[in-house]
Amino acid sequence: MDVVVNAATSADGKLSNRRREQIAISGPDDFDRVDDLRAESDAVMVGVGTVLADDPHLTVDESTSAVRTERGEPPQPARVVADSRARTPPDARILDGVARTYLLVSEAAPTERVERLEAQDARVITVGDDRVDLEDGFETLATEGIDRLLVEGGGELIFSLFEADLVDELSVFVGPTIIGGREAPTLADGDGFVEGFPELSLESVERLDRGVVLRWRV
Amino acid sequence: MDVVVNAATSADGKLSNRRREQIAISGPDDFDRVDDLRAESDAVMVGVGTVLADDPHLTVDESTSAVRTERGEPPQPARVVADSRARTPPDARILDGVARTYLLVSEAAPTERVERLEAQDARVITVGDDRVDLEDGFETLATEGIDRLLVEGGGELIFSLFEADLVDELSVFVGPTIIGGREAPTLADGDGFVEGFPELSLESVERLDRGVVLRWRV
Repeated sequence: MDVVVNAATSADGKLSNRRREQIAISGPDDFDRVDDLRAESDAVMVGVGTVLADDPHLTVDESTSAVRTERGEPPQPARVVADSRARTPPDARILDGVARTYLLVSEAAPTERVERLEAQDARVITVGDDRVDLEDGFETLATEGIDRLLVEGGGELIFSLFEADLVDELSVFVGPTIIGGREAPTLADGDGFVEGFPELSLESVERLDRGVVLRWRV
Repeated sequence: MDVVVNAATSADGKLSNRRREQIAISGPDDFDRVDDLRAESDAVMVGVGTVLADDPHLTVDESTSAVRTERGEPPQPARVVADSRARTPPDARILDGVARTYLLVSEAAPTERVERLEAQDARVITVGDDRVDLEDGFETLATEGIDRLLVEGGGELIFSLFEADLVDELSVFVGPTIIGGREAPTLADGDGFVEGFPELSLESVERLDRGVVLRWRV
């Protein structure tokens, strides 16, 4: 499976402010770029923290959707949430039925919550004891025909993916602002590396809107 | 006074790992770039956290120093530490006498420590009650002939400078690695902004070593 991480950060590497409020970091050209990335993907993934903070929809525009249909693909890419404890609210926008939605949960997820989410047509994949085993989860997703996965955050999920050596490409829109804050979410949070840092290779640098897109291969 | 902030971060915006250990983020071309930046500056500034973690020297190469002397400038730029409580160790490398060193302290700094540092030829400037008042400090530095100040971190000082609206230019070398860690120091820490985010304008984008240098005007 090809795993692409995409995010927009401030010039100081933050995804949002310390209150986890979304900040307008990019602009219309970057929105189009993200739409294209989604259109080329079989599924779009986020962590449950992002679902709880932003309630994203993770769909593509109508015109992009039409192009996908013409190509013989589902009109929308599937949606995937890494959600160890099944904390996704049953009324989350990603459960609106517009696209197939997979929830990766762990054995520790309460059965009652899992059943409520399944009643909302969520396809629940249980992998890992206490936390989602991302590698196993991705293997199951691959058997569901997901060959290209776009990950849109947040920082906890992105760090876990780098830790498990599951990222193939990272693209970051760096925007013209400073958010600051030692507690604000960054592109890669988690415990962090103290050695054995992943090595990247800079593929391209492109100015877009009032910022720049950096594309790295891992 | 013209204030330029310069730093090297990982692709996820970190200055170092969660243990505050220095990581090789940039390379020889970026070291030359930083040497040039220092050479053009009247003083180089860091926060006391950086002095305690890295014990930097903040000097320019011998050849650069010779060029400065030819221009009729002091061979080395002065050094400045923002150090509210006078925690700079008396045997810190910035107090080795190679260049003039200013310590900005607050009224809360213990007299005994201030006196020990003055005995090491530190020029102590007291500004602010509990924390250094950076604006007042910079005014005093200006009267000492410092017209161009280069700030090299860390994230607490850089955030405080943005908060006080004292930054004119930000240049960031973004390097080919991921450090991660919700507690790792980032380019701008402190409390962070929740509104009124500083607006930047992207002046230039230049590939260097295996990363990229982004230059922003504030």
